[in-house]
Amino acid sequence: MPAYKLILGNKTYSSWSLRGWLIVRLAGISFEEVVIFLRKADTKARILAYSPAGKVPTLIEDDRVIWDSLAIGEHLAERFPGQGLWPQDPLARSTARSVVAEMHAGFPALRSALPMDLNKRYPGHVLSPEVKADIARIEEIWENCRRQFGSSGDFLFGEAGIADAFFAPVVVRFRGYDVALGKTAEAYCASIADWPLMQQWVAEAAEEKEVIVFD
Amino acid sequence: MPAYKLILGNKTYSSWSLRGWLIVRLAGISFEEVVIFLRKADTKARILAYSPAGKVPTLIEDDRVIWDSLAIGEHLAERFPGQGLWPQDPLARSTARSVVAEMHAGFPALRSALPMDLNKRYPGHVLSPEVKADIARIEEIWENCRRQFGSSGDFLFGEAGIADAFFAPVVVRFRGYDVALGKTAEAYCASIADWPLMQQWVAEAAEEKEVIVFD
Ligand SMILES: N[C@@H](CCC(=O)N[C@@H](CS)C(=O)NCC(=O)O)C(=O)O
Ligand SMILES: N[C@@H](CCC(=O)N[C@@H](CS)C(=O)NCC(=O)O)C(=O)O
Repeated sequence: MPAYKLILGNKTYSSWSLRGWLIVRLAGISFEEVVIFLRKADTKARILAYSPAGKVPTLIEDDRVIWDSLAIGEHLAERFPGQGLWPQDPLARSTARSVVAEMHAGFPALRSALPMDLNKRYPGHVLSPEVKADIARIEEIWENCRRQFGSSGDFLFGEAGIADAFFAPVVVRFRGYDVALGKTAEAYCASIADWPLMQQWVAEAAEEKEVIVFD
Repeated sequence: MPAYKLILGNKTYSSWSLRGWLIVRLAGISFEEVVIFLRKADTKARILAYSPAGKVPTLIEDDRVIWDSLAIGEHLAERFPGQGLWPQDPLARSTARSVVAEMHAGFPALRSALPMDLNKRYPGHVLSPEVKADIARIEEIWENCRRQFGSSGDFLFGEAGIADAFFAPVVVRFRGYDVALGKTAEAYCASIADWPLMQQWVAEAAEEKEVIVFD
């Protein structure tokens, strides 16, 4: 087994780090965690000491560097094929790859208007039409995945996998900003909130003292 | 062999479509092409008739829909492992996945300031500091890949693969906006320009009559 190290941002705020951490946990490997606080004078330099792209999450595997949550997911899915990171069924798998890629490059309005913040609630937040459109599309994705592929469990493709790691930070945002959702989306949010890995991340975030204030 | 259909935007302007088309061509499959012109009143509806995310490229494989260039890449790499879509060597492959994912979600300044336009040159374009930083990072990626993994050919990892499909539209932008580059980057741009698949795409773009004017 290679030696693994995962470079992360603050658990309270770093949505991409949450995705990477969930994936690495799903892969079942043991790893050392390095948390680098974001938005500080030395943040960039500290991340660049590990990763040429200057972003978290970054996975170190022996002396190999894999940066970006999606590259980490594909790499670990290939290395540990028995861990169910992607669904077994080929149609479910190609659909999981599509929704994960859509999340990876998309939803800019949602991401900038509703930054992830695990330690605070922002009730009564007014949503722009662009953010509402992003939310509607995410609900549609969740409904389609649950209906077509979700029958064997509570997650998008039944058992928890990379797709759930990618949408977990969205659930945090929906809850933090009190976004009203349909029945399927609400149930899926509850599954994510009950997920033991998610609960561990939330508990660890609650212990962080660093505060970032969003405008 | 399944029946394939690839849904694309205008060849002149659609950088993501170019990525998807190059990948599908590298996979060596035959496919029907459906070109939907972007930025027209019926564009969204026409794309949505094929793809739930409303974006091109989208690949139809029999009755399966795979949207997003990166999902298409991983799907075809898995289905046609002998086509060299990803590098064979594991370290080269995980690095290719990292740089492709970095491109997939990143470089927003470059992408919005220098839209791809194959039929026009924009000399003397003034570059913002953010765009310059994106360009510097891309040059660094190209130099590292060429130096560490490129010795067996003219592409980022030797032979042409998904990583080159992802950076080919960037080469088009650098040329179209007369961006000054270092020696390695210049040589790589020349390799992309000489690539027969690229030349075919450029020739087909030249036959398009639709014009989009950028501000
Ligand atoms: N596409 C990347 C996005 C990573 C990203 O943007 N991470 C943010 C934190 S959530 C970051 O590292 N920012 C660097 C900084 O703030 O200096 C991925 O999927 O991993
Ligand atoms: N993340 C997507 C991005 C695809 C994308 O943004 N495509 C643009 C054209 S290059 C599009 O379809 N726009 C839809 C529209 O203009 O209505 C991918 O990698 O395929």
